[in-house]
Amino acid sequence: MCGIFGVYGHLEAAALTQLGLYSLQHRGQESAGIVAVDDDGRARVSRAMGLVSEGFEDAEMDALQGPIAIGHTRYSTAGASAIENAQPILARVRRSHIALAHNGNLTNAVELRRDLEEDGAIFSSTMDSEAIVHRIARATGESPEARVAAALQGVEGAYCLLVVLDETVIVARDPHGWRPLVMGRIGESYVFASETCALDIVGATVEREILPGEIVAVDAQGLRSINALESAPINRCVFEHVYFARPDSKVFGGSVDRSRRALGRKLAIEQPAPGAEVVFAVPDSSNSAALGFAEESGIPYELALIRNHYVGRTFIQPTQAGRDAKVKVKYNPVRELLEGKSVVMVDDSIVRGTTTRGLVSLVRAAGAREVHMRVSSAPIISSCYYGIDTPHRGELIAAQMSHAELVRHLGVDSLGYLSIDGMLSAMPSGPDGYCHACFSGRYPTPIPADPELLRAGSAA
Amino acid sequence: MCGIFGVYGHLEAAALTQLGLYSLQHRGQESAGIVAVDDDGRARVSRAMGLVSEGFEDAEMDALQGPIAIGHTRYSTAGASAIENAQPILARVRRSHIALAHNGNLTNAVELRRDLEEDGAIFSSTMDSEAIVHRIARATGESPEARVAAALQGVEGAYCLLVVLDETVIVARDPHGWRPLVMGRIGESYVFASETCALDIVGATVEREILPGEIVAVDAQGLRSINALESAPINRCVFEHVYFARPDSKVFGGSVDRSRRALGRKLAIEQPAPGAEVVFAVPDSSNSAALGFAEESGIPYELALIRNHYVGRTFIQPTQAGRDAKVKVKYNPVRELLEGKSVVMVDDSIVRGTTTRGLVSLVRAAGAREVHMRVSSAPIISSCYYGIDTPHRGELIAAQMSHAELVRHLGVDSLGYLSIDGMLSAMPSGPDGYCHACFSGRYPTPIPADPELLRAGSAA
Amino acid sequence: MCGIFGVYGHLEAAALTQLGLYSLQHRGQESAGIVAVDDDGRARVSRAMGLVSEGFEDAEMDALQGPIAIGHTRYSTAGASAIENAQPILARVRRSHIALAHNGNLTNAVELRRDLEEDGAIFSSTMDSEAIVHRIARATGESPEARVAAALQGVEGAYCLLVVLDETVIVARDPHGWRPLVMGRIGESYVFASETCALDIVGATVEREILPGEIVAVDAQGLRSINALESAPINRCVFEHVYFARPDSKVFGGSVDRSRRALGRKLAIEQPAPGAEVVFAVPDSSNSAALGFAEESGIPYELALIRNHYVGRTFIQPTQAGRDAKVKVKYNPVRELLEGKSVVMVDDSIVRGTTTRGLVSLVRAAGAREVHMRVSSAPIISSCYYGIDTPHRGELIAAQMSHAELVRHLGVDSLGYLSIDGMLSAMPSGPDGYCHACFSGRYPTPIPADPELLRAGSAA
Amino acid sequence: MCGIFGVYGHLEAAALTQLGLYSLQHRGQESAGIVAVDDDGRARVSRAMGLVSEGFEDAEMDALQGPIAIGHTRYSTAGASAIENAQPILARVRRSHIALAHNGNLTNAVELRRDLEEDGAIFSSTMDSEAIVHRIARATGESPEARVAAALQGVEGAYCLLVVLDETVIVARDPHGWRPLVMGRIGESYVFASETCALDIVGATVEREILPGEIVAVDAQGLRSINALESAPINRCVFEHVYFARPDSKVFGGSVDRSRRALGRKLAIEQPAPGAEVVFAVPDSSNSAALGFAEESGIPYELALIRNHYVGRTFIQPTQAGRDAKVKVKYNPVRELLEGKSVVMVDDSIVRGTTTRGLVSLVRAAGAREVHMRVSSAPIISSCYYGIDTPHRGELIAAQMSHAELVRHLGVDSLGYLSIDGMLSAMPSGPDGYCHACFSGRYPTPIPADPELLRAGSAA
Repeated sequence: MCGIFGVYGHLEAAALTQLGLYSLQHRGQESAGIVAVDDDGRARVSRAMGLVSEGFEDAEMDALQGPIAIGHTRYSTAGASAIENAQPILARVRRSHIALAHNGNLTNAVELRRDLEEDGAIFSSTMDSEAIVHRIARATGESPEARVAAALQGVEGAYCLLVVLDETVIVARDPHGWRPLVMGRIGESYVFASETCALDIVGATVEREILPGEIVAVDAQGLRSINALESAPINRCVFEHVYFARPDSKVFGGSVDRSRRALGRKLAIEQPAPGAEVVFAVPDSSNSAALGFAEESGIPYELALIRNHYVGRTFIQPTQAGRDAKVKVKYNPVRELLEGKSVVMVDDSIVRGTTTRGLVSLVRAAGAREVHMRVSSAPIISSCYYGIDTPHRGELIAAQMSHAELVRHLGVDSLGYLSIDGMLSAMPSGPDGYCHACFSGRYPTPIPADPELLRAGSAA
Repeated sequence: MCGIFGVYGHLEAAALTQLGLYSLQHRGQESAGIVAVDDDGRARVSRAMGLVSEGFEDAEMDALQGPIAIGHTRYSTAGASAIENAQPILARVRRSHIALAHNGNLTNAVELRRDLEEDGAIFSSTMDSEAIVHRIARATGESPEARVAAALQGVEGAYCLLVVLDETVIVARDPHGWRPLVMGRIGESYVFASETCALDIVGATVEREILPGEIVAVDAQGLRSINALESAPINRCVFEHVYFARPDSKVFGGSVDRSRRALGRKLAIEQPAPGAEVVFAVPDSSNSAALGFAEESGIPYELALIRNHYVGRTFIQPTQAGRDAKVKVKYNPVRELLEGKSVVMVDDSIVRGTTTRGLVSLVRAAGAREVHMRVSSAPIISSCYYGIDTPHRGELIAAQMSHAELVRHLGVDSLGYLSIDGMLSAMPSGPDGYCHACFSGRYPTPIPADPELLRAGSAA
Repeated sequence: MCGIFGVYGHLEAAALTQLGLYSLQHRGQESAGIVAVDDDGRARVSRAMGLVSEGFEDAEMDALQGPIAIGHTRYSTAGASAIENAQPILARVRRSHIALAHNGNLTNAVELRRDLEEDGAIFSSTMDSEAIVHRIARATGESPEARVAAALQGVEGAYCLLVVLDETVIVARDPHGWRPLVMGRIGESYVFASETCALDIVGATVEREILPGEIVAVDAQGLRSINALESAPINRCVFEHVYFARPDSKVFGGSVDRSRRALGRKLAIEQPAPGAEVVFAVPDSSNSAALGFAEESGIPYELALIRNHYVGRTFIQPTQAGRDAKVKVKYNPVRELLEGKSVVMVDDSIVRGTTTRGLVSLVRAAGAREVHMRVSSAPIISSCYYGIDTPHRGELIAAQMSHAELVRHLGVDSLGYLSIDGMLSAMPSGPDGYCHACFSGRYPTPIPADPELLRAGSAA
Repeated sequence: MCGIFGVYGHLEAAALTQLGLYSLQHRGQESAGIVAVDDDGRARVSRAMGLVSEGFEDAEMDALQGPIAIGHTRYSTAGASAIENAQPILARVRRSHIALAHNGNLTNAVELRRDLEEDGAIFSSTMDSEAIVHRIARATGESPEARVAAALQGVEGAYCLLVVLDETVIVARDPHGWRPLVMGRIGESYVFASETCALDIVGATVEREILPGEIVAVDAQGLRSINALESAPINRCVFEHVYFARPDSKVFGGSVDRSRRALGRKLAIEQPAPGAEVVFAVPDSSNSAALGFAEESGIPYELALIRNHYVGRTFIQPTQAGRDAKVKVKYNPVRELLEGKSVVMVDDSIVRGTTTRGLVSLVRAAGAREVHMRVSSAPIISSCYYGIDTPHRGELIAAQMSHAELVRHLGVDSLGYLSIDGMLSAMPSGPDGYCHACFSGRYPTPIPADPELLRAGSAA
């Protein structure tokens, strides 16, 4: 997964982009980058591994002059982690430049790449996004947006794009609308971001969503929108609301905090925990859902797990002490709230189950009498090919174990997942138009013939 | 302020200390250090600026061999910030060594230093703690603990100390007991820490508090406790419960989460907000208090402010965009929860008022109709000389403005502080034996004649 | 200027390449890089700014597995200095890869780039070398070497290339032969390098020069050589022998030490210094020439200038003290050898004249009575377009001043340059087949219409 | 070994000190440090591991304000290598400060330390120099120089000291005069340095040597010299002229280049190599001696070994390729000069013999027919306790093997050392007043009872 942010027409475009990326940090911590274009049309790029707050030295930020900037934060995926795969991509061609930041995953990346290579293209990264840059370089059109539209014909899968062609910013969202993308304004300047929380931090007003299939361009000629991509059914990612987006964002037109609260309430109705004395969240992503569960069930909400936010990337030492402390490094229970109690622990999802198992053990060691696990989404049983880095099916614990096995494996007294229907009905605009492939296995489009090949080259 | 942690008798003493310091990171982020003593009695030290998770390279940790280790995290105070002032201090003397980690502030540091210098001592730091090391070097006694006790005669102010003399660990807490210090066990090993959360992370069981005025020593001869310091009234720091300690710790014998919940309940009784529709915390230190306020008042508890935990140390750029974003970099409101509402914002304390003012403005911009500020402690009107880095009185906003001025300055519709009595009555062991000098101005001991001089050399 | 080094068929190919680059460090200090290809045909790259001895961390070297490696050291040229311009270039195309290291400068780089861009290519650097990679990607051929040969049709200017196509190493030298390139062996392994000193350090035996216009390929099918490039007059760079190459190298078939000695002897014949009492070199590149001058003239050779080799890149502070010390930071005279004497200072060349002027002043301050400057090459009056980073003609002092002005400007009592004929007659294989454009202004091929454009994109 | 440099009374004292240390870099590469004292009498220190050119960031140099500065470069010795042992030492005492930079080794360091510790002193390093700081802190005197003189009573061994007491600079040289120390001037400012080459780089004129046993002080009251130390026989270190000092320095009143030339001439007389065709040096320290040998013998001087000056500290990789290249990384022979020849290789000294053996092997591999090794000093058979880091006697190859064994071990055809008498007669002021303990085993003063103990704590 990734976060993208762009500015058109602001004196401090790069500084705003740095702030915007910082508030999208939850969407990717592996690398961060900014491309800025100055008044003379010169593009400059700065990319670094790691966090936004670490990645840009003062001198680099000073060099990123000009009224146009786009930025990108990239999620850490095993193996393909390298500075070569940091975005935005900046290509120089015919005394001009193409910069691109991409959130999503292309499902026909292998075919696109093969076609381009047969036509003479060479690649300097393993990212699917680089194929789009090549296609834009080869495409023609009477306007920058028409050129991008031409380049996107035949590109399949999930993409939200920020593109800079010379001094035009073009943004595009695939016709299925898997990933979110919004537009805002600061005075006369335009701002584009994966989530509204990034508009908030720069003081931009939210204008509207970029629609599925829409291409918007802005430059000295002003802002215009075209609808040149083939239309398709809407498949917004339900997991953005369940887990990925920030609760202070509006995503797909609805408040994430509100949908998580609704998920928690539905969970309490579908999977009650009669006799339980305390409800608590696995902080911070499940706070809203746990509060919803507490409200609906009437069981008191407590802050029973404290999260340590000073986690460093290279922290855990290869000692026994370090291995034993894995989960404890992140969470510590408040014994006074758990001792002798029957408790409900609410989490938003279970992927591999390792953390859940560690937490259950921690909570029991702190004296809980019964541990009732409640999950505010359905069991994850399939991989995602549209931008979320779910692991292989073989590592998805709900795909590998029966309910009874799961209860035993996690060490809980009971385990209750929300149903897919329950989950969808909690979405802001109702149950329709959502992709739930990771929960249902029903992929709304063809997936790659050789998924591993695709994943290796994914820009996420 | 600082955090201290020590281990006696464990094969992985330094690795446990690193974990312990990591869970005490909230007590100090400026620098971190560890001294370890190996089986041959050789002491080694590693100290670095910054966080525990960044400060120790693998090679350094590998070198910190042996069954004894003590560690320290230091709070960042302006000016005196330097690697020279990182602890533990390690002095080598007579083929032996003295290592020391100190939490607290000495009130007669200037006099102690002058006396030592007149007697020929030289100093390599500006820390008050270095005077204690000199005094231990010069002291004699029939046992290590007697020697430390002798060295502490005449040392005034707040101190929790972890000392290593050769292969003995000695811990001491001043007779007033300002700062917390607990003892735990892992099998046959002893562990000492500022807070119980640090015992939790290493899997130690909590044995008991080190008592005010107590000196405990442990070495091959076993554990023993002496009571050689002049007795004094108990003055535990109320601010540890109000703000400083972690909610998952037990401090001064009581759960911090429970006392904060009680503070919130008392606040709702003393300073109700009739007509308000929503209660929310300034996360994360005020979560418990806000929940207490909600429970007592019946007003719903909401997660209306989202905190960004990716804050880096050198983040804010010197651009207008950066300056405007100061508070937004840390907090973002959930507009859906605030729009058109009368809201109660609960914080644990107000120091300079800058953040509060920014938050009120954020919350209003998100649409709140009325903002009622409630503070789960009394107004801070005096500086602390016992280890908390409160600024000069001139910067304490409650010392500079009347209540009416404060209301206007902060931009709130109403402002309610908890009373000192209310605050004390929420403490775990009842209202007695607490220092509330920063709230009341009533210092329980003489303070330095020239406080500035003291502060310059403080180890915090 | 740059240095290139490659290995085929050795278990420690990357480690040997690191050593080889290290001994070619004098050919470029700006950046260094290595591409290695492992037994499974996977290519990995590591590139860093700065010296070879600083650029590769242990973990990176460990990752550069496999029996094939090529490396590159790049010269620092103002402006275009950036990690994007570090080599080798590694492009991924059709599940295959193309790696390339280039020493030299293309004279039709602008045209090559324009043609490729018109055909849809995009560039990720400003280097002329990237055009060759694109051409190889688009070229076809019945063998890897035929494909490289096809790609090089129409490429004009100076190039020595090391290319890896999948698991074949292909080396090529332009038909004019401006830059040196040699082949050696370690057992069954092949080694390629700019100079023989790099074969020495890895213990390789020198096999032979790669001939002008020759393309050599080596892979599992063995070694073969083709001669597919259009033949052209030989234009070896005389400046390699005068200054650039290491004295312990054999270049263009002859010992650099021997040719420099011959240059010094001819200089003493053409430009004697009767009455002088001491001859000394500007160390270290002029040592051989000065010794030759001393032998021929009978004037004693002395070590009158001592060079400090601890020069760091960021050393000179912006203080008056720093500015005054510019030349002194690098050289200090031995006063006892100069005081009251008439001295001959031998240097290999004068470019801008700044250092020479500073040295003359140093030598006079140390007491020299008369300073006779002797230069073992002709005056540099023209820029190089074939790989040497001579500055613009406007900065070449010999192009801007008459002989009399130069004598006055440098502050010498006499100034004697070697003639072009004298210089050429000292070359190992006699005076023919050398390019002396920088001394004579007679370019052996067309130079770029807009030289500045070319220089901006030069890979050197 | 170490280098020291100090300035009194110059606006850019710290910048000059950085330049001075840079030219003394050959005396120590492990760490470097500067203490500066500003106009208000405030002392600041900057110390770092590594080279002078790497160690001081711009911001740090900017902070080192004021007209007084002293600096130190420290030699790397195994084990005790740590930032704690970097100098200058800066101690703060009684609102005042003592800064100290020391070149040399104390022979009664253990006793001095014991006495201080019994008197209550604690140490923060393992350096013998710290004992002097304690003694100065405890000493009294009617002037700063008298106080330093009092502190030095009873201090035995080798020392050149630069001390700053408040705003007075005091320099002292032990009565035996083992290490060099000179005084220079820049206008009204005074400069002190280990060697004259450091005066040259800052443009200072050489005033005179600091005499053995002399203490010089300079402050607002002007410059004065006292002679308060007990007189003793002069024991200047002959190894400074043989190897350690720079050839462009004047040391103990004589030119190092001239004495090395004389050593080479004497070597040719004592140990001729009849029939040899070529003489060459192991560069750079033996260049002068080899030239002297060539002149005296009439055998031509050649530049047959080329030294690579780009050696980085972490360069050699733990691969077979790396191990094989050890000597080659530093030196490469010029085959054309050696092939088929009988050659004389001149070096200034042989310590462990490892490098010599490697070089002989290189030279033979380059085709030399006979290798005659000539050494411009006597065999090293004893450790130094006066400041040179010679290894233990057990590692000194000349102390462990007979001449015949050495010839065989080194692989030479003949081996000739200069005699001790020959060596001493080449010294500038004649043979008397030199310490030659490392060559003769005749220590001019008592050496430590437990030398290992001393070495562990040596400041070099």
